[in-house]
Amino acid sequence: MPDAWLRLTLAPGVGNTSLIRLLTAFGSPEAVLASGRAALAAHLSPAQCDALLAEPDGAQLDAIHAWLAQPGNSLLTLADEDYPKNLLEIADPPAVLYCKGRRTLLNQVCLGVVGSRNATPQGLRDAEAFAHALSDAGLTIVSGLALGIDTAAHRGGLAGAGSSIAIVGTGLDRIYPASNKPLAHQLAENGLIASEFPLGTPPLPNHFPRRNRLISGLSRGVLVVEAAPDSGSLITARVATEQGREVFAIPGSIHSPLARGCHALIKQGAKLVESAADILDELAWQQRLTPAAPAAALSDPVLDALDGAPTTVDVLALRTGLTLDALSAKLLALELEGLVAPLPGGRYQRIH
Amino acid sequence: MPDAWLRLTLAPGVGNTSLIRLLTAFGSPEAVLASGRAALAAHLSPAQCDALLAEPDGAQLDAIHAWLAQPGNSLLTLADEDYPKNLLEIADPPAVLYCKGRRTLLNQVCLGVVGSRNATPQGLRDAEAFAHALSDAGLTIVSGLALGIDTAAHRGGLAGAGSSIAIVGTGLDRIYPASNKPLAHQLAENGLIASEFPLGTPPLPNHFPRRNRLISGLSRGVLVVEAAPDSGSLITARVATEQGREVFAIPGSIHSPLARGCHALIKQGAKLVESAADILDELAWQQRLTPAAPAAALSDPVLDALDGAPTTVDVLALRTGLTLDALSAKLLALELEGLVAPLPGGRYQRIH
Repeated sequence: MPDAWLRLTLAPGVGNTSLIRLLTAFGSPEAVLASGRAALAAHLSPAQCDALLAEPDGAQLDAIHAWLAQPGNSLLTLADEDYPKNLLEIADPPAVLYCKGRRTLLNQVCLGVVGSRNATPQGLRDAEAFAHALSDAGLTIVSGLALGIDTAAHRGGLAGAGSSIAIVGTGLDRIYPASNKPLAHQLAENGLIASEFPLGTPPLPNHFPRRNRLISGLSRGVLVVEAAPDSGSLITARVATEQGREVFAIPGSIHSPLARGCHALIKQGAKLVESAADILDELAWQQRLTPAAPAAALSDPVLDALDGAPTTVDVLALRTGLTLDALSAKLLALELEGLVAPLPGGRYQRIH
Repeated sequence: MPDAWLRLTLAPGVGNTSLIRLLTAFGSPEAVLASGRAALAAHLSPAQCDALLAEPDGAQLDAIHAWLAQPGNSLLTLADEDYPKNLLEIADPPAVLYCKGRRTLLNQVCLGVVGSRNATPQGLRDAEAFAHALSDAGLTIVSGLALGIDTAAHRGGLAGAGSSIAIVGTGLDRIYPASNKPLAHQLAENGLIASEFPLGTPPLPNHFPRRNRLISGLSRGVLVVEAAPDSGSLITARVATEQGREVFAIPGSIHSPLARGCHALIKQGAKLVESAADILDELAWQQRLTPAAPAAALSDPVLDALDGAPTTVDVLALRTGLTLDALSAKLLALELEGLVAPLPGGRYQRIH
């Protein structure tokens, strides 16, 4: 089974959006590969068809299998039950995630912490202190393993009672920047490093914005610690808002260039925060920690696949193995029973 | 005429709210004084009636007349045409304002600038720089002549192309703090000092909150520069919000105690500002500078008395000399013609 996912995601020139379209149309990666050129041509360019139908690169697959055989390494696909629920909500969930470390962290309550690579010493201390306190409150701190604020955020997350996840824009065998290899090692031991990019992928500029959508997508909210007005952190914050995530920003002196990005965010509606407690208040964290009353035991493959997070019909089809027709009928029945509710954008939500 | 206003406002134990009630009931200060004890008793306690009907203190009146005879000094009453329009909008407009300096400034577009008496050197520089730039844009800077941010704000306002008004909580012959006497002198020469409190009134703690309602009431908005979380500036900001004024706050480091008040305001909805331009943008200042198209010449005492600012029927009665019955009939006619509109709280607004 992983091989079909690998062949799809390794095909050159076939991006994640195309893959999601194919998986939706054919139901599984195996069905995509078995469908034949004529069926694929309805969804892909001739060059993409060629790439997808080409003989797989045995050496590359062998290398991935060898990597996956090492302790702590794994591949998570969109069809896996422990695929992060929060990523199912975003517009472009990655078909696969290469994981090194505790992949169960992906379904913990996460908070993104991002900011400048050229942060001030105070900014670094603030990022680490906020991340440490939020981790102690049980949150998992998500960042991008960059220098500056990212590094401080990971350190704080690992130091607290919670943990930390690095989402990187390279293959997991290509840690960037090299100076963060020791931190990457700590994350692999006590937290998690994850990437949607195949092993061997070098640091490419256009991969970092794609990576950022996962930092915010995994998270309930994103904290921006220090950011210049043209910082990539502001793009992450914008994407977070588009994904319906909270954005938090730490203010600073009006004479500090690295406060300007945070001030711009606050002017646009981000929450000004002075302490980790401000963030926890805003997330109503204590409330969330209260376990929900146990519902009457209802076991149903579609309800189980919904799992509390709004999910598209396409993803539900992958998760349940049902045809779209069968799934639609089932969803309608569940909706009439008041057990699921349709949401804008073709998503369904389980009602408890 | 001023003597009747003075006798009313000098009567011990008769507060501004009681005076407004009496003026509304009887139509003018002379009518109040001529109404007799039986009529007054419906509105005042016996002690207040005694105070109001007692023989006036001739020496005190003489002292006020002597003060008023000095160049630059004047008394502005609620019935005067150049009584500040913005104060007519607030819940408790002062019956009289003692003025020293350019009282026409009271009807300029004003911005309150307030903050800590124990400001940091950076806070003082910021207050002066913002006030200077806003004054250069044509705004009149209003503050309270206190040490710290108030002093810096007045200096900046006087240095710019606009000017500055100090609203004080003492009699105008009792400048407080004494170290600000040179600044008070500059304000009297090039700006304005005003007070609702009679000459000789010492600095009393309960007068300062009353004074603050005039700083915000005169202003289109209030800028808070540095403030501790328990600062009186936050009360001014709250009153400003209740009066429908904008509140602006300058952020600072989360490690600066004097930024906490500003951060609390921003969390409650105040606008974070990094520059004078941010404030001017928010006030749509350029737009306001564009003169309105001249309306067809409509001359009517009630319309003239409305003058663009929402005004209560009570104040309109004072301004026009009409009885409440005559005024009500007139207002209804103007409303039917689409020339005035009733607002919540018994106010009327002229429609242009």
